[in-house]
Amino acid sequence: MSSQLSTHADTPAFEQRMRAALELAARRPAVDPNPRVGCVLERDGAVVGRGWHAGAGTPHAEVSALADAGELARGATAYVSLEPCAHTGRTGPCIDALTEAGVRRVVFGQHDPNPVAQGGGEVLRSRGLEVVGAVLADEARALNEHWTFAVSHERPWVRWKFAATLDGRSAAADGSSQWISNALSRVDVHEQRRLAGAIIAGTGTALADDPHLTARSSTGGVAGPQPLRVVVGDRELPADARVLDDAAATIQVHTHDPAVVLKELHARGVRSALLEGGPTLGAAFCAAGLVDEVIAYVAPLMLGAGRSAVGPLGVGTLSDATAWTLYDVTRFGDDVRLIYRRK
Amino acid sequence: MSSQLSTHADTPAFEQRMRAALELAARRPAVDPNPRVGCVLERDGAVVGRGWHAGAGTPHAEVSALADAGELARGATAYVSLEPCAHTGRTGPCIDALTEAGVRRVVFGQHDPNPVAQGGGEVLRSRGLEVVGAVLADEARALNEHWTFAVSHERPWVRWKFAATLDGRSAAADGSSQWISNALSRVDVHEQRRLAGAIIAGTGTALADDPHLTARSSTGGVAGPQPLRVVVGDRELPADARVLDDAAATIQVHTHDPAVVLKELHARGVRSALLEGGPTLGAAFCAAGLVDEVIAYVAPLMLGAGRSAVGPLGVGTLSDATAWTLYDVTRFGDDVRLIYRRK
Repeated sequence: MSSQLSTHADTPAFEQRMRAALELAARRPAVDPNPRVGCVLERDGAVVGRGWHAGAGTPHAEVSALADAGELARGATAYVSLEPCAHTGRTGPCIDALTEAGVRRVVFGQHDPNPVAQGGGEVLRSRGLEVVGAVLADEARALNEHWTFAVSHERPWVRWKFAATLDGRSAAADGSSQWISNALSRVDVHEQRRLAGAIIAGTGTALADDPHLTARSSTGGVAGPQPLRVVVGDRELPADARVLDDAAATIQVHTHDPAVVLKELHARGVRSALLEGGPTLGAAFCAAGLVDEVIAYVAPLMLGAGRSAVGPLGVGTLSDATAWTLYDVTRFGDDVRLIYRRK
Repeated sequence: MSSQLSTHADTPAFEQRMRAALELAARRPAVDPNPRVGCVLERDGAVVGRGWHAGAGTPHAEVSALADAGELARGATAYVSLEPCAHTGRTGPCIDALTEAGVRRVVFGQHDPNPVAQGGGEVLRSRGLEVVGAVLADEARALNEHWTFAVSHERPWVRWKFAATLDGRSAAADGSSQWISNALSRVDVHEQRRLAGAIIAGTGTALADDPHLTARSSTGGVAGPQPLRVVVGDRELPADARVLDDAAATIQVHTHDPAVVLKELHARGVRSALLEGGPTLGAAFCAAGLVDEVIAYVAPLMLGAGRSAVGPLGVGTLSDATAWTLYDVTRFGDDVRLIYRRK
């Protein structure tokens, strides 16, 4: 498809409108089976319609913008942050809506990576519309990083979160572990949960710590839409386990195979999963190559003994260890949060 | 002594001259038994003399500045970054030199914390000189942080340096450990060595790794004055051990008691020691409360097994662990250097 954009005479004007579309897209959080998309319709230099996708089951951004513009859409240019879809899901293909409304030109950001929906730009071009792609494509892709990964890899983006002392321990010799990380770090954990479509923990952790696995505000209240709670393993949980309360939906996946867990989550439209351990489950995902990001909260403590935060990885010699890229370093008081990504 | 400085009408002028004295003091590195000191002599608004202390066995800053000024010192104001000393060491007391030269007023930065040398300000005042203390005292103290600690505590400031994976390991299951940290971190280690009066390692590390324990340039050459190499323990080293070559002085201290090691180093005028492990020796210093700073190079690796970077600390439960303050966070590529200090 069109990649001659950098030489297009209208690039600055395109980018200005695309930026407005990106801002519309960002009006809702990223956690959803569907991508965030914004659309701006322009005719004769004036914006005549705006729309954004508010989540699965609601109209796509293009359809919203067309409804906003009404008859003014005829002859307009549509700026869409994601290539208009060519498939019928819960709603009809956006390329048909754009064609029927008489849009003359489509400028889009990210190429659609979704195998079942991509190719919309080519179809529009074959119908005689002018189509320009990849305008602010990086920014557009960044709006839907987890979704882009998930539809390309057919599994959620997996972030493994753990707290550890400077010497890599998650509990002292007597098992005491509350709290390794400080209050600021724990607030951030809830922020990380809010960015996830699912939170994964093992039955061992569920039985030992009885965690709630919800995204809570700093005052402790369950805040906003909640990720799916996923308990992995065969052991039965007591009916009064916190993870089984009605604060959020919960599923138990009876397997020890990380790939099976992720397949189940993908089928449910989960684009980003937060893996909260314990050490053995986290290491199992890691050893299977199914951790894309590590979020470690390192506390200003050394224990010299006690449980390791990272369980067995099957690494015998140093050169066999996976090397990660340090993606982000953020201080939370005397804690430091280190985020790593696959190289 | 005088602490009414903040209301002194001449404070801005004092600080301007004091800053010049601090810059002179900083002309040599901090590693020396003696503090860094600078002195500016001012008469009738003009600087008539400058001096700084170039290290043990050379003239003190005041004496250098007086020599620089000659007869112009009579009636001058001396700005000295450290309170002039009142004792006779390898050189005579600076308070006598100042008095004999006819200096009329002394403005100093840091009060002398050294029990055997302090009180010079009071003596000068009793001799009729005007004395103003604590001008830019914090900046002046920062010039001699390790020296100040050492003369107050009668032992060197101890920095424990280690490299570890994100899960706190210093070697893989098969013992492989070269290299946990990356080339940028290893360059920084040599910078840290340059800031030390002594480098401490155990006989175990000396026998297992045969380290050189010198401060080398990034091209591998032994660069500049070298810290004293200190091997702790009873086991005999082979005559061809790298640590015994003639690149730097080496002593072996036949003890396992960290306090005995530090007493020996203090007697030798060492103000700052870099403890390079291994895990057991580092933990022994730490458990004895004799580590003031931890410098951890955290590599973007997880091993899940292998030797811990931190040996036994005698901590049984989480609340017994020492809490540290996170003092500095610096990235070296995908490594991160975390510096902690005692709370």
